[in-house]
Amino acid sequence: MQPGNKRRIYINEVVTRDGFQIEPDFVPTEEKIRLVNRLSRTGLAGIEVTSFTSPKAIPNLRDAEEVMKRIDRVQGVTYTALAPNVKGCERAVGCGVDEINLVMSASETHNRANLRMSCEESLAQFAEIARVAKDSPVAIKTLISTAFGCPFDGVVPAERISHIVERCTKIGITGLTLCDTTGMADPAQVFALCDGLRTCFPKVTFTVHFHNTRGMGLANVLAALEAGIEHLDASLGGLGGCPFAPGSSGNICTEDTVHMLERMGYNTGVNLDLLLEISRGLPAVVGHEVPGQVVKAGRADRKYPRPSWLDGCKEQVAMSRS
Amino acid sequence: MQPGNKRRIYINEVVTRDGFQIEPDFVPTEEKIRLVNRLSRTGLAGIEVTSFTSPKAIPNLRDAEEVMKRIDRVQGVTYTALAPNVKGCERAVGCGVDEINLVMSASETHNRANLRMSCEESLAQFAEIARVAKDSPVAIKTLISTAFGCPFDGVVPAERISHIVERCTKIGITGLTLCDTTGMADPAQVFALCDGLRTCFPKVTFTVHFHNTRGMGLANVLAALEAGIEHLDASLGGLGGCPFAPGSSGNICTEDTVHMLERMGYNTGVNLDLLLEISRGLPAVVGHEVPGQVVKAGRADRKYPRPSWLDGCKEQVAMSRS
Repeated sequence: MQPGNKRRIYINEVVTRDGFQIEPDFVPTEEKIRLVNRLSRTGLAGIEVTSFTSPKAIPNLRDAEEVMKRIDRVQGVTYTALAPNVKGCERAVGCGVDEINLVMSASETHNRANLRMSCEESLAQFAEIARVAKDSPVAIKTLISTAFGCPFDGVVPAERISHIVERCTKIGITGLTLCDTTGMADPAQVFALCDGLRTCFPKVTFTVHFHNTRGMGLANVLAALEAGIEHLDASLGGLGGCPFAPGSSGNICTEDTVHMLERMGYNTGVNLDLLLEISRGLPAVVGHEVPGQVVKAGRADRKYPRPSWLDGCKEQVAMSRS
Repeated sequence: MQPGNKRRIYINEVVTRDGFQIEPDFVPTEEKIRLVNRLSRTGLAGIEVTSFTSPKAIPNLRDAEEVMKRIDRVQGVTYTALAPNVKGCERAVGCGVDEINLVMSASETHNRANLRMSCEESLAQFAEIARVAKDSPVAIKTLISTAFGCPFDGVVPAERISHIVERCTKIGITGLTLCDTTGMADPAQVFALCDGLRTCFPKVTFTVHFHNTRGMGLANVLAALEAGIEHLDASLGGLGGCPFAPGSSGNICTEDTVHMLERMGYNTGVNLDLLLEISRGLPAVVGHEVPGQVVKAGRADRKYPRPSWLDGCKEQVAMSRS
């Protein structure tokens, strides 16, 4: 557990996509745009703005086009959108996204339940999309859901992940996100998988996407960083959550992640105070409390006034050598 | 980030002391006894049962004698009580505790605010207590509060901790607990301090005591284990909290800690399912929700039934080599 030594870590904010998609109430379009615009100015490396999916499947993101077209683009920030199929990709390209996140699950049952197709069919679709995207300036990344375990199928063998990565690289996709969709990953597993994949696929850029469902979110971040990962997804306020763990926490919280990493000496490039200020407004946007902790407790370097009845006592009195 | 490889980690449960002491309502004596008795049968290494302090200072633990005397002792479990002064130690010894936790803060202001004396006066008192305890079968340990930072004084130099440890060893106290009283520690700091202290004091048994105030609790556990620490304090349901961080989480949650460590291959000796069962009853005991996550989400190996409309699709269909 070495200090960060100013190592650069890239944070990708997913609150307006992964966070808002499962909110009980629709977040007004204006609020989404305002939030993305504010987040764009914090130093975050990227923002997953929305998802070009069916308005029936995810009514909360039915305003994908409008949000994507009306946000202010800040140079240096990568604006991403999720697209579950060819049609979604066309819509995303039409809105000028910088990057498209394709998605499939590593486990067969979750892929069928989530996307109504087999893993093999997902990969075939990716190949088609990759062919079309070749001539556009849009980058393509693949999110691998249930990469650390599946709520239906249980353990997902590392070979399946490795196989998906291999298939993706063969069609020109070199950005992959390992998603712990339902918060099953533990740090030993994260290290082993990330370390193994980075060794096998040195040219692939891996991102990790953790949920704090069982409290292991930030511990898993440490494990991923130790395995050489430099790209993290995180969600403002820890919004997100998982349909298979009602009442539990959501994605790892962006400001809590940045706070820990900066304390450890990593360089996230993010203005933490600005991020905390934005996070303080989040409960008003979604209409409920959110899991993020630093916004409640304050930064670890927060100082409290000494109790007044201690006036006259010196601070940090030297203790005598015995 | 290596797997646990069955390494033995000792968990000390503090919910009935650190947890209950700041609860808004008094937890009935019978409930405390019942809880300790149930916890005693989970395989936990130790239980900090109560605190022999002034009933005025901590009214919630005014039943310390009765609880300590009436619990069933299970062989192999260390029953500890906190005692802030000589009188408290006498009361604890009178109840036949196995171990007394003395307490002082590493920072001058916190020690004065909490204990109404200087750090030097605390150490002098420890010497007196250690002399008396020498002839009793009771073990003595020192809890060092604010070991990772003070909400008044800020950074606490490692030299202060090292000095306190040295003074304690000179009076025969070789069990020390490093407490992150207000949840300020980060993993890099935890590793550096624990590693440094273990190198300087190879004969001392160090315990770490983390709060999850800023979400770093389990990440800090990983750092401590990597530095060779084998003893952890934790609190059922994550009860506890900190007066300087209203609304934030409390101590690290025992069942979440055990869950993570067992997943990683460590051996905590704890029956997780039994612990979860006890934790499920905790909200009824304290009258409110608690921060623990695994009890809400279920163990990571929890499986959900496959959606029925997927019947007929095969599980884990092999993907073809491309």
